[in-house]
Amino acid sequence: MEVHIAAAAVAFVKRGSPPPVESSTKPIPSSDSAIKCLPEGLQVCIVGAGNWGTTIARIIGSNVMNSKTFDNKVKLWVFEEIVDGRKLSDIINEEHENKKYLPGYKLTPNVVAVPDLMKAVDNADILLFILPHEFIQKICCEIAGHLKPGAFGISLIKGIHESPGTLKLTSHIIQEMLGIEISVLMGANIANEVADEKFCEATIGCTNKTHGKIFKELFETLNFRMTVVEDDETVELCGALKNIVALGAGFIDGLGYGDNTKAAVIRLGFMEMIKFAKIFCKRPVHLSTFLESCGIADLVATCYGGRSRKVAEAFARTGKSLEELEKEILNGQKLQGPPTVRELYKILKKKNMDEEFPLFVCIYEICCDGKSVNDFICCLQTHPG
Amino acid sequence: MEVHIAAAAVAFVKRGSPPPVESSTKPIPSSDSAIKCLPEGLQVCIVGAGNWGTTIARIIGSNVMNSKTFDNKVKLWVFEEIVDGRKLSDIINEEHENKKYLPGYKLTPNVVAVPDLMKAVDNADILLFILPHEFIQKICCEIAGHLKPGAFGISLIKGIHESPGTLKLTSHIIQEMLGIEISVLMGANIANEVADEKFCEATIGCTNKTHGKIFKELFETLNFRMTVVEDDETVELCGALKNIVALGAGFIDGLGYGDNTKAAVIRLGFMEMIKFAKIFCKRPVHLSTFLESCGIADLVATCYGGRSRKVAEAFARTGKSLEELEKEILNGQKLQGPPTVRELYKILKKKNMDEEFPLFVCIYEICCDGKSVNDFICCLQTHPG
Repeated sequence: MEVHIAAAAVAFVKRGSPPPVESSTKPIPSSDSAIKCLPEGLQVCIVGAGNWGTTIARIIGSNVMNSKTFDNKVKLWVFEEIVDGRKLSDIINEEHENKKYLPGYKLTPNVVAVPDLMKAVDNADILLFILPHEFIQKICCEIAGHLKPGAFGISLIKGIHESPGTLKLTSHIIQEMLGIEISVLMGANIANEVADEKFCEATIGCTNKTHGKIFKELFETLNFRMTVVEDDETVELCGALKNIVALGAGFIDGLGYGDNTKAAVIRLGFMEMIKFAKIFCKRPVHLSTFLESCGIADLVATCYGGRSRKVAEAFARTGKSLEELEKEILNGQKLQGPPTVRELYKILKKKNMDEEFPLFVCIYEICCDGKSVNDFICCLQTHPG
Repeated sequence: MEVHIAAAAVAFVKRGSPPPVESSTKPIPSSDSAIKCLPEGLQVCIVGAGNWGTTIARIIGSNVMNSKTFDNKVKLWVFEEIVDGRKLSDIINEEHENKKYLPGYKLTPNVVAVPDLMKAVDNADILLFILPHEFIQKICCEIAGHLKPGAFGISLIKGIHESPGTLKLTSHIIQEMLGIEISVLMGANIANEVADEKFCEATIGCTNKTHGKIFKELFETLNFRMTVVEDDETVELCGALKNIVALGAGFIDGLGYGDNTKAAVIRLGFMEMIKFAKIFCKRPVHLSTFLESCGIADLVATCYGGRSRKVAEAFARTGKSLEELEKEILNGQKLQGPPTVRELYKILKKKNMDEEFPLFVCIYEICCDGKSVNDFICCLQTHPG
């Protein structure tokens, strides 16, 4: 703990006076000097300490050390659990390791686990939301009205919500409930490989140029390359919809088909992702966004190495239920594909558009409506392409 | 042989009088009646009986049976080899199986292996070119001037040629040498999976609408779905360039990286493929073509299941030469990535554009110029994206 306390102390000295309210949205003289003009020592809070949240904490903990832009201490809100008879927050703070969700990887000691949500977000300038999408409303409800003025956030959450018959993005929910600007980060980022520091890319969707630069500095490393695009709705949708396609890819693996068939599923799924974004995004959708890491790269990585694929493969092979397999295979992690396809199906049904998305609908029916997984091939054979 | 002779006899009866010269390019009254208006019994010759050529022969042999559009007999030109003491053409004609390049899969008896190239192409209305791209000039040289008037063709060959400092597509070479219209067929079509009748898609690039319809009828089955697009140059380029990217994907596998890094290679390679097509195609390049099977689907399938990937993985893992591994792993099949990247590099060098394609150039240097495969990660880390 000594190292940790010392690091925090240094951080507080470095940080100086708190930044003036809303200064982060002030216009900046030139694009390159953006970060220099910002107040020093932005305090970062990561809301969520699962597999992905902890991986991000590892990167950010290291990135903010000796940074002039960020406070040296990073708070990590942990949903308290008992792991081997100890509190998870204690394990993280004492051993600098999340033994439950990212065992074997050390965090820098400036990452401090905080089990009390209000204490975690208190005084934070930047909030990172990284938790299963079904918990976001409860969390926002608790912290609404308690944030520092001028705070802004970024969502790394994958999922969509149906809300009176249309699409609601997770970032929209956070934005509305908290009244702060929310960007998104998505990409081909299977957490353990990122934790292993194996090279990958990610996409930040952000309409505020200043925030975009801050996020790039916060997240980027030599092996975790950031691209910032403005088309934030598309970036976020890609992160959600790819998990549906990955269920289809898993079915193909479980049924014993090969790379050709899987490539066809990926392609047809990609086409439905683009079509869906064009219909449901409020702002213009750029095809180029689908060619970023959040688009095609994440789709491919998830269809080969993601959790939804893995569970869907077992589902097709064994005939066990998705719920059963989620428990067996994922060690407490949440399966993202089924809740996403369930929400998506509600939206399509209400808009009377289910026939325009035959792949998504077939995946829904297999996952949630008792259709045989063997019928998936028939869906491909008759897909209009 | 009896079955075979009988089938051929039926075919000749069905075929009737030969089609009038150039009738296949006549305008047609409506799009749906295209095939009905064409002369019956177009004779098909497949030039090349390797793994892919034999797979295609299997599909076409079955498709032309009882067809009114095509002659019931399909000629398959075989480069004669001795296999287990017997001529390959004899094995195919007696056992209806290409024991060397597609063992375990029966051909329909109406597919006739012909080792004499001139006899194979004689009287053919439609020529399918399916052989390693380095042999195409020699083959065209031999058959030029010996084709039936009005004949047209399709190339399933993957590769590019450098010709006085610029790009030359295989279809252009065939077209120029033979003076006939040439379309192309590319897609996520790993041969053995197609032979197994596992569902996949393919793209026909064809500027002649009538030919497009004929090819769709010739190739399409329930599990081999065709889309016809006009952008034939892009379709063909995709088929060649994906083999370069697959070498990079293989390096990543051999170096022990995971799906994130591989997805980044696929994405960055895809961006360079699009950029290259935009610079080097003579006619307008449509981004939508890259979203067809010939584009993203073939790229993904090849980067996970293709030969170039497989050999490149072994190259990175063992340090043996590509030539040595090609012999060890591919059972006489040709590796398409290295000759393609060699031709591409010549083109880029002559146009002074090598710096604009860092991924392609790095793959070239690793394959052909002694650069260490470990430097590939550095190429990704510094890629402009």
